[in-house]
Amino acid sequence: MSTDPDFTMTEKAGLYKAVFSRRDVRSHFIDKKIPDDVLVKLLNAAHHAPSVGYSQPWDFVLIKNKVTRLKVKNSFILEREKSISLLDNDLDRQDKYTKLKLEGILESDINICITYDPERFGPFILGRTSIPETGEYSVCCAIQNLWLAARAEGIGVGWVSILSIEDLRNILGIPNHVKPIAYLCLGYVNKFEDIPDLERARWLKRTILSKVIHFEDWNNSELSTWNNTNKLIQNLERSSNV
Amino acid sequence: MSTDPDFTMTEKAGLYKAVFSRRDVRSHFIDKKIPDDVLVKLLNAAHHAPSVGYSQPWDFVLIKNKVTRLKVKNSFILEREKSISLLDNDLDRQDKYTKLKLEGILESDINICITYDPERFGPFILGRTSIPETGEYSVCCAIQNLWLAARAEGIGVGWVSILSIEDLRNILGIPNHVKPIAYLCLGYVNKFEDIPDLERARWLKRTILSKVIHFEDWNNSELSTWNNTNKLIQNLERSSNV
Repeated sequence: MSTDPDFTMTEKAGLYKAVFSRRDVRSHFIDKKIPDDVLVKLLNAAHHAPSVGYSQPWDFVLIKNKVTRLKVKNSFILEREKSISLLDNDLDRQDKYTKLKLEGILESDINICITYDPERFGPFILGRTSIPETGEYSVCCAIQNLWLAARAEGIGVGWVSILSIEDLRNILGIPNHVKPIAYLCLGYVNKFEDIPDLERARWLKRTILSKVIHFEDWNNSELSTWNNTNKLIQNLERSSNV
Repeated sequence: MSTDPDFTMTEKAGLYKAVFSRRDVRSHFIDKKIPDDVLVKLLNAAHHAPSVGYSQPWDFVLIKNKVTRLKVKNSFILEREKSISLLDNDLDRQDKYTKLKLEGILESDINICITYDPERFGPFILGRTSIPETGEYSVCCAIQNLWLAARAEGIGVGWVSILSIEDLRNILGIPNHVKPIAYLCLGYVNKFEDIPDLERARWLKRTILSKVIHFEDWNNSELSTWNNTNKLIQNLERSSNV
């Protein structure tokens, strides 16, 4: 690794390639083990995320055991049923929903449950006193680090959120004060789709970037002092890389 | 950008370099503007984060206005005072706290408030029905994408969390149903510290990776089937890259 503070063009390209080609993976898993040293690289990348007050409030439960995974899969099945029933008044979407593949718990090589421990180094955490949720936000930054590192290694990651927090605590023996934040399924894949699954399935489209940008104040979607930025965003939307 | 699904060694190194050399920056800002096209690259990287049900629930308020920033700085000053008073029974830490530089609101080139809109594409969001917080978690993934892209561009980012959510809503005209998640200060810096600020200030140390790893179940900090992974983690801790 170059220790020059500046990035070469190729180093930069590597970062952006991970950002733009990362996918939330539920299929395409192949029968190839993740080597231990690669797994450790991913965990170390997660461990180097920013955290509020340097509290590093994450833990990682690594899971290969098939019995454990079957229990998690059962939680998924129950939560999915509940979710489907919420669409009883929208049969088109309900039908679409039931056809989607939403997890790879059993097909992936390794599952990882990433949790948040509010008591680590506490109770006083610098920077967490006004907005307590920043503790959980730190864990999410760690998750994104791991996700991007996995992409660079050719490993797909799927975040399964149709699960019960209480089930996860019970299945994995997680203490009550610790909160499961994400349940991830990791494995080598034979491809990363160009277009995200839910966009290909016509569930939702990617939002246009300019719709989520505000200048100086929420109510300004344009402003003369920001005209050039605005123009560049419009140009980007006309190109293919939106 | 190479479109080969595999990463070259240098592309991988670029990703890991961003992950390991990224810092939470409160000083070292220099007097150099962020070009509009670079800012748009950072926003586009954030916009390509994963999001629950593809809900893309983020918004970005871009702020250069000095009056707005002074109002935010005032919110910081008030919240910092409250935080300091929480340490009235721990005068050593209180003294340390008061000496820390915790924000670069006015010195940085651009401030960005990143928010969460739970109503976007809602009320039914695929995958958010069991764990509603996953909406906010998506926004955090976008923040981490932006942070890493900024590092690759030589731009420092500082997350100011000692702020009142209500003040941010009032100052920036953010609707009540939208939740500010992060307030970031961005600018070119003359250096990225090797060691995080709070570690250099001896506030807290980096946790040893092995302490946050659990095998198959929360209660297993070692397990014969995971011996090799465990050994590699120990080796990593003996090297400098922990």
